[in-house]
Amino acid sequence: MSDAPGTPTDPVRRRVLAAIAGAGGLALAGRVGAEEASVPDPTKVPGRPPSSVGERSEHARLERRAAFGAISGTPLQNLHGTITPSDLHFERHHAGIPSIDPAHHELLVHGMVERPRRFSLADLLRFPAITRIAFLECSGNLRLDAGEETTPQFLCGLTSQSEWTGVALATLLREVGVKPGAKWLLAEGSDAAVMTRSIPIEKARGDAILAYAQNGEPLRPAQGFPLRLFNPGWEGNTSVKWLRRIEVSDRPFMTREETAKYTEPIGDGRVRQFSFTMDARSVITTPTWPATLERGWHELRGIAWSGRGRIARVEVSLDGGRRWQDAKLAGPVLPMAHTRFTLPFRFVGAPMELASRAIDETGYVQPTVRQLIEARGVGSVPYHLNPIVHWGIERDGRVLYKPLAWR
Amino acid sequence: MSDAPGTPTDPVRRRVLAAIAGAGGLALAGRVGAEEASVPDPTKVPGRPPSSVGERSEHARLERRAAFGAISGTPLQNLHGTITPSDLHFERHHAGIPSIDPAHHELLVHGMVERPRRFSLADLLRFPAITRIAFLECSGNLRLDAGEETTPQFLCGLTSQSEWTGVALATLLREVGVKPGAKWLLAEGSDAAVMTRSIPIEKARGDAILAYAQNGEPLRPAQGFPLRLFNPGWEGNTSVKWLRRIEVSDRPFMTREETAKYTEPIGDGRVRQFSFTMDARSVITTPTWPATLERGWHELRGIAWSGRGRIARVEVSLDGGRRWQDAKLAGPVLPMAHTRFTLPFRFVGAPMELASRAIDETGYVQPTVRQLIEARGVGSVPYHLNPIVHWGIERDGRVLYKPLAWR
Repeated sequence: MSDAPGTPTDPVRRRVLAAIAGAGGLALAGRVGAEEASVPDPTKVPGRPPSSVGERSEHARLERRAAFGAISGTPLQNLHGTITPSDLHFERHHAGIPSIDPAHHELLVHGMVERPRRFSLADLLRFPAITRIAFLECSGNLRLDAGEETTPQFLCGLTSQSEWTGVALATLLREVGVKPGAKWLLAEGSDAAVMTRSIPIEKARGDAILAYAQNGEPLRPAQGFPLRLFNPGWEGNTSVKWLRRIEVSDRPFMTREETAKYTEPIGDGRVRQFSFTMDARSVITTPTWPATLERGWHELRGIAWSGRGRIARVEVSLDGGRRWQDAKLAGPVLPMAHTRFTLPFRFVGAPMELASRAIDETGYVQPTVRQLIEARGVGSVPYHLNPIVHWGIERDGRVLYKPLAWR
Repeated sequence: MSDAPGTPTDPVRRRVLAAIAGAGGLALAGRVGAEEASVPDPTKVPGRPPSSVGERSEHARLERRAAFGAISGTPLQNLHGTITPSDLHFERHHAGIPSIDPAHHELLVHGMVERPRRFSLADLLRFPAITRIAFLECSGNLRLDAGEETTPQFLCGLTSQSEWTGVALATLLREVGVKPGAKWLLAEGSDAAVMTRSIPIEKARGDAILAYAQNGEPLRPAQGFPLRLFNPGWEGNTSVKWLRRIEVSDRPFMTREETAKYTEPIGDGRVRQFSFTMDARSVITTPTWPATLERGWHELRGIAWSGRGRIARVEVSLDGGRRWQDAKLAGPVLPMAHTRFTLPFRFVGAPMELASRAIDETGYVQPTVRQLIEARGVGSVPYHLNPIVHWGIERDGRVLYKPLAWR
């Protein structure tokens, strides 16, 4: 819906609907004036016939927004439920989206394996398929420079959720036979950046997926068509897109993306490497800027997720963090998955300050900005930052993001 | 993937990949000839930049197929997992797809209620939202005239699955206050057919949803934008699209769609009315016509669902129904939801005949054609027919549908 909750209702519309209802046989008073006559009655004209694909309504425009570099964020504030439409999944790439003909794409698996082999997509489709719903989040998913007029999309739209289908990487590793002593593998993409990451063998033998489908259909090119690695719960860049090569080894490969990039200072002068797991986090998606609330009851809504498993609880504050209450979680609550939380609240014309914090099944609690700064220091690299964020409601109902005191 | 399992591999591709791997630094022998030179190396050119929406690959064409009348089916054989992409959800309408501006759309709730009222979409968005993944199936979802060269899409593609979000109809009924003695309500669409169905008050107060979103985004116009009723587990036509009016009453409304249409002969000369619930059913989606299998191991895949709750078990036969074995179900197994089943099997060049049957949590077993005919007679109206169907594999690996002996 492009209508945000609380959008002032249109007085014309109510009269028009009275006219439509009257046409349907209801005895309702309603003056039909010039304005009403200009709104076509959909019951009086034949509709469009079936089509090969069902497009969106022209009134339901949705789009990703480019942030900086080769990045675009998901419009979290416009979405419902937990699935991100495939064409609105956030994108991050290091040298653009390659154009790949799947008939000419293969995955080479070699290194410390008994039977090195290339697999075509037809080969991969013959292996047992597994499917799971899970989030995928970029490790750099926070804009520290966000001002009051900020949407969730701009602030932290680099998280999205899909139903992923593919072959368990563990299955393929059994097929090629991993040699004793193997501890890491390299995943390599076929984009112009030849994106590479080292993955511990435990993850590869665990829940990692060689994904060829997303939300029922083949991956979209921006998401790695025709094949990507998918590491549930881990920072997005490890889920290497356009995957063409896996090399098994006894040590990590120390690629650019795990030495020069994707490492974080931890406050005492040292830098953290191979920080794979995404910590628990939540964000309110409704109400947020640029909504203006009418007085009365509303439903606060948001999503929470954790790379360590299920969300156990989400707490919401309506007074800037002084008092907290449990939000309601919508089931099924799946591990490593965006989980919807909701809480009804009443706006009476007095200022409010909304905030949410996620608690996952390990007991981890989403930190405040202050706690994050104490633990990590004020580094220049915004990776793995998941602070509680606040949204203010002004006396007149305007909703504004409260910029983080990141210093 | 447009590659069906078992598609013969392309010898050119293997040499090309050797060339690509060589360029990536691997010492692999591979003659690079004229053919290989014509395949562009995606790592040697910058890719496309981010975009507002991520389109499908030109190599991953998917489409609904119009069957007859205003009907188009979902390409079940091309999909993975359980979610149907919103633009591939089957469509059935009685007078085409209306074009509706959501700013001028309202839902009128009246009849035996204390406080009759119109609700704008902004109003509905303020009520507590609920979300569930569930199938939606047309009650006329079987082609009795299907020949050997039939896909699942053509045979029974009028079932699809989405994550639906909206307001519980029960919530809205509490808002308007249902008067004592109310037993039914009328749901009316704003299409040119002014589609209407009577819904028992128990369903309305149970799990019925006033849905405004599907797979995270607003409903597509073919699925009822901006508002539809969604009755989990019930025949699709009761989930009235483009919903504009609900009237509460003490009796059913006996509309055209529940008197002249959507009733079934039950074999003894009588006709069944208000047969809302969709019975348990399954269909194999891989391998099916037009696949040709290579010898060796393959994974049989399909979907099973029941309007009465969860799928408890799916049994698969590889020999035309003589012996049956349990398929593996992919979790989470949700009530009234498409559930994936799989079974590895080996094709050795001898003819095979594949079949599946669903058993739901009530103990209901998907019937054979013979059992259906015995229970219902051979009526001319193919509503609520859910027989076990068979797929043959010829000696040469060709897969063909086995037409039903419907007489």
